Amino acid sequence: MPETTPQEGTPAYEPTQRTVPTRSKERASYDRELVHAILDESYVCHLGFIRDGAPVVLPTLYGRVDERLYVHGSTGSRPLRMAGRASGEGTDPGLAVCLTVTHVDGLVLARSAFHHSINYRSVVVHGVAHEVTDPQERSAALDAIVEHVVPGRSHDSRPGNSRELAATAVLRLDLDEVSAKVRTGGPNDEPEDTALPHWTGVVPLVRGYGTPIPADDLDPSVTLPDYLSAL
Amino acid sequence: MPETTPQEGTPAYEPTQRTVPTRSKERASYDRELVHAILDESYVCHLGFIRDGAPVVLPTLYGRVDERLYVHGSTGSRPLRMAGRASGEGTDPGLAVCLTVTHVDGLVLARSAFHHSINYRSVVVHGVAHEVTDPQERSAALDAIVEHVVPGRSHDSRPGNSRELAATAVLRLDLDEVSAKVRTGGPNDEPEDTALPHWTGVVPLVRGYGTPIPADDLDPSVTLPDYLSAL
Repeated sequence: MPETTPQEGTPAYEPTQRTVPTRSKERASYDRELVHAILDESYVCHLGFIRDGAPVVLPTLYGRVDERLYVHGSTGSRPLRMAGRASGEGTDPGLAVCLTVTHVDGLVLARSAFHHSINYRSVVVHGVAHEVTDPQERSAALDAIVEHVVPGRSHDSRPGNSRELAATAVLRLDLDEVSAKVRTGGPNDEPEDTALPHWTGVVPLVRGYGTPIPADDLDPSVTLPDYLSAL
Repeated sequence: MPETTPQEGTPAYEPTQRTVPTRSKERASYDRELVHAILDESYVCHLGFIRDGAPVVLPTLYGRVDERLYVHGSTGSRPLRMAGRASGEGTDPGLAVCLTVTHVDGLVLARSAFHHSINYRSVVVHGVAHEVTDPQERSAALDAIVEHVVPGRSHDSRPGNSRELAATAVLRLDLDEVSAKVRTGGPNDEPEDTALPHWTGVVPLVRGYGTPIPADDLDPSVTLPDYLSAL
């Protein structure tokens, strides 16, 4: 039987100097499906950029369409002003960014303080974000951001009108220079610590949904849609 | 009855140009107790810094001691090499950073796509991180990082030995230029959208702990400590 690789059909991202970690190399992955899964499961990313020579990291919503990530915001917000049409001379210089998504899956309690850790899955995307001006791509991007919050929702809400769309800037970041990093499993205690009397293992963190809270002005005849009761 | 302010007894952080948001100013807060509570509840922060002229955002554990945050890592890791003693001429140039912590508390589903949002609490800290070299402060910082993962744990694990301590760099970031941003409550729909047939409200996100998983080599006579069964 021919050997298959996990990347078959979905070639992995090409590692670059800045996506190969200096530490814990064995935790790094460039697998597209893993990267997509980590990205799709989170609600916010942390978007890093440089302003006045200093780093800035802001949480923001995002959406994914195939190999493109989108973030959006007011045309008056800082990162969106810094990229795209609002930045100056009609050209789009783009904005150098680093977009990071992290899930914390468990607390790893080792016998030694040194080996305490967390189980996590993270994705780091490096690149230059550009403002999206094509109306069709903007519309698809905004739908993707709403779908990212709740799948099914973009078809069950009023689309943006011209005033709202004019007030919204959309940035695109291609998934090109990308890596995932994953830690799973138990503590890595030193062999000489095995006899120590401390409990050791993993405390899993779990995430779930509470009961939906209707808005005060919701017409009581409007029932909870299937895509929400399924959560 | 005299009016009291939330800051009484704990003066708020002084707003600066970069901690006053350009958007949604009403969500910003400089209240110390709020900032501390948001910081203390999270497991990882997202640490932003500049490397080779580009922004980098990495998730990392951290700890807080009063008005100081600490992050740690291998002396070989990139941000830790870039600050402190390893960076060059024996001086400590520090590393300009932005450290951000975010909790996502709920999905805000409006009748219009435009007003979709999330309820969240975030803290953004700007500053210059410096390597900690004082042995007592290093020890307190490492304890704080372990305590941040599980309160009570630093007294129930083997402290770092000289080899482990030599391999660990600790950075300090003072809580000085700090802001919190909080969104709570329901959707902000447009009055003219009230009659639309879409369900609207908030889906709360909840977080909890799963059943602790003992390490494979744990002596079965070692029982779960109180500080873990209390989680």
